[in-house]
Amino acid sequence: MSKALKLGVAGLGTVGIDALKLIALHGERFASRTGCAVEIGGVSARNRRKNREIDISPYEWFDDPVALAESQDIDVFVELIGGEDGVAKASVEAALKAGKHVVTANKALLAHHGIELARLADAKGVALSFEAAVAGGIPAIKTIRESLLANNITRVYGILNGTCNYILTQMQKEGRAFDEVLQEAQDAGYAEADPTFDIGGYDTAHKLAILTTLAFGVETSIDTVYVEGIESISLADIEAADDLGYRIKLLGVALLTESGIEQRVHPTMVPKNTAIAEVDGVTNCVAFDGNFVGDILLIGPGAGGGPTASAVISDVLDIAKGRISPPFAWRTEDLKPYERARMRSHEGGYYIRLKVFDRTGAFAAIAGRMAEHGISLESIVQRRPAAALPGLDARGDDGAPLPVVMITHETTEAAIRAALKAIEDEGNVQERPRMIRIEKL
Amino acid sequence: MSKALKLGVAGLGTVGIDALKLIALHGERFASRTGCAVEIGGVSARNRRKNREIDISPYEWFDDPVALAESQDIDVFVELIGGEDGVAKASVEAALKAGKHVVTANKALLAHHGIELARLADAKGVALSFEAAVAGGIPAIKTIRESLLANNITRVYGILNGTCNYILTQMQKEGRAFDEVLQEAQDAGYAEADPTFDIGGYDTAHKLAILTTLAFGVETSIDTVYVEGIESISLADIEAADDLGYRIKLLGVALLTESGIEQRVHPTMVPKNTAIAEVDGVTNCVAFDGNFVGDILLIGPGAGGGPTASAVISDVLDIAKGRISPPFAWRTEDLKPYERARMRSHEGGYYIRLKVFDRTGAFAAIAGRMAEHGISLESIVQRRPAAALPGLDARGDDGAPLPVVMITHETTEAAIRAALKAIEDEGNVQERPRMIRIEKL
Repeated sequence: MSKALKLGVAGLGTVGIDALKLIALHGERFASRTGCAVEIGGVSARNRRKNREIDISPYEWFDDPVALAESQDIDVFVELIGGEDGVAKASVEAALKAGKHVVTANKALLAHHGIELARLADAKGVALSFEAAVAGGIPAIKTIRESLLANNITRVYGILNGTCNYILTQMQKEGRAFDEVLQEAQDAGYAEADPTFDIGGYDTAHKLAILTTLAFGVETSIDTVYVEGIESISLADIEAADDLGYRIKLLGVALLTESGIEQRVHPTMVPKNTAIAEVDGVTNCVAFDGNFVGDILLIGPGAGGGPTASAVISDVLDIAKGRISPPFAWRTEDLKPYERARMRSHEGGYYIRLKVFDRTGAFAAIAGRMAEHGISLESIVQRRPAAALPGLDARGDDGAPLPVVMITHETTEAAIRAALKAIEDEGNVQERPRMIRIEKL
Repeated sequence: MSKALKLGVAGLGTVGIDALKLIALHGERFASRTGCAVEIGGVSARNRRKNREIDISPYEWFDDPVALAESQDIDVFVELIGGEDGVAKASVEAALKAGKHVVTANKALLAHHGIELARLADAKGVALSFEAAVAGGIPAIKTIRESLLANNITRVYGILNGTCNYILTQMQKEGRAFDEVLQEAQDAGYAEADPTFDIGGYDTAHKLAILTTLAFGVETSIDTVYVEGIESISLADIEAADDLGYRIKLLGVALLTESGIEQRVHPTMVPKNTAIAEVDGVTNCVAFDGNFVGDILLIGPGAGGGPTASAVISDVLDIAKGRISPPFAWRTEDLKPYERARMRSHEGGYYIRLKVFDRTGAFAAIAGRMAEHGISLESIVQRRPAAALPGLDARGDDGAPLPVVMITHETTEAAIRAALKAIEDEGNVQERPRMIRIEKL
């Protein structure tokens, strides 16, 4: 109780301000609950004079976050600046080199430089904590690092980007097109003016790479993740999925296979009537399969000031209690090299959507290409017009190509790609076949 | 790495055996991950010679778990005997008094004697850990104790009993009656020969009392929980709920209100299309509302050898890392007295099912009683026969009383009870009105 842990908070956006509010509101109690008071030793941000929700004048101001990171007056550097390089990286490095603990919400920094920073933290015996960097308020990192420590993790996956999930949810619930919902999300502040980082799947890939290292104890980085975004998901896909008993979610999945670890981010079909299918809007989730514990699913707010500040302060309070864990759950010298399982060897079921020209033999040819690649079909649905399959005994009412949707039994990515290429080359389809992977839950 | 933490494992049922298997399989790795090896210092069970899945002869045997608890050869006493009193309590007390850490999965012991045992643990500076006692493999305890430590918790609730959830799920999915599904659950080993402890809601109440103390820092116990079981849930309720957009789950709910803390276990209507509504079969879940983090929901296996052993060993590994927390997240001297909010002041919506005699003015009288108690109705459904309301303009095809289901707007438990009593007394209904509370998610 005699000691106080002093924080230097760099970055005073929503999260930084909510962290200061949280400490102002509950700080007194922390001392009795951790044996160590938590105080603010200094703050830093781009603009000192910006109009903020709270008065920051009581806190010592630093123009330069690196100077704050190195200040004698702080024990923990709380990095809420963001960005994979630049001042965020420089100040975190400075803090670690000065023997300060670091708490950060910066997924980009961690996904690109996490292991190198963890080495620095290990060498200095300080914490590098980042509960807030993956899935906001959800205690995903602590769950892997501590609660599931007894297990071999075989898969970790989740809905890790609120923007994508909001867009997919709105498309499904309101029957509206991607562009329209994206525009609305931008207007509402759920999506950036340049939405590529989110909707392209890159944000999810950053978080997945962090989870992969934690779950499997391997040295990985963002570059090793296979990434597909949600830009090409159409309302027709959403509706066909619904008919077939699925929802479409952008998942990040890291899976232990015999040929290494698959890391993939892509739109994914998940069965309706599962909890993950009901994770809607900006909510996130993270799931773990462990060899003893079985399947665990954590759901909660993936972003926002309050949830992220809650996660940041949970890291701070662990440090206040003297609980320093290896940043990535394994000592950095024990991390193994990452063995990448190629996407071509991915195994699973697939959803395929084709626009088939209405001519005799067209569907027979398509079915033939699938069979040649050893792919068997679980179901075939033709949605509009309400007739049978093209080229067999049906005829679209305006002669237009007919949409056909198929669900395959388990096969390989290589087989699907080859079959779809053959189908496209053969010319019975109007456009490139669409394919969405199905995840077994 | 030099030191080893020695466990005394008392109780060699499914969980005890899986804990031994887990250590045999992964124990070597624990040393490098925690800095401290984990070994077995002795085991105890009722029957030494019972045929078990693994050979226990390498472990030192103790006939008396109390002797094991006090053995010089152990650092941590792992109590997997069960039961609120008797040898479980005696051996846990003996271990704590001897300055040994205790890890237990025994919810009954904790719900009845937890605070008294926590005092003993606090006095000796040892751990009393029980991640496995609530919701099996789900890291509910660590999430409250550590991840949400920065928050004021305003509500904690969950599906905490797999037997009840299995029965309700089967009734809903297969349209079968309670008795039939219960019998099946007993045959499959999901329900005890005497199922009262589970289906009466008492098992849930035990776990809820533990969560209440952790979440709100109050001294509570099983006796302070309002309990209703699932025995009276009929297929008619399940089907009416489905029509109205709800699922019925047995929830334990602890809620901070202006007049104290509500603790209640009862069948509850939760909206379909929510993750909790999709928590099916023997799966459990625990949800927290925090003032900064918002709503967090954890889903996973609530029982079984593997998940429970995973939770037990996570507690052991925290002890191996030297991380000793106050058992109930607050130091026992900081626990506040429990202020009980009476059920009569509970506020919420209600589902009501009546069998109304088909006579003129019957429904008008019922509606009048509701209005007199200030209760307004959100919806009214008459399911069979497909006609309108009794006594207004409808007639059952065999003259039998007509089932009527109503959903109320928010009101109080006192108002509902008074209105239903008046309705029953007035004689327009054939049987006592059924009432199920609706939980806002």
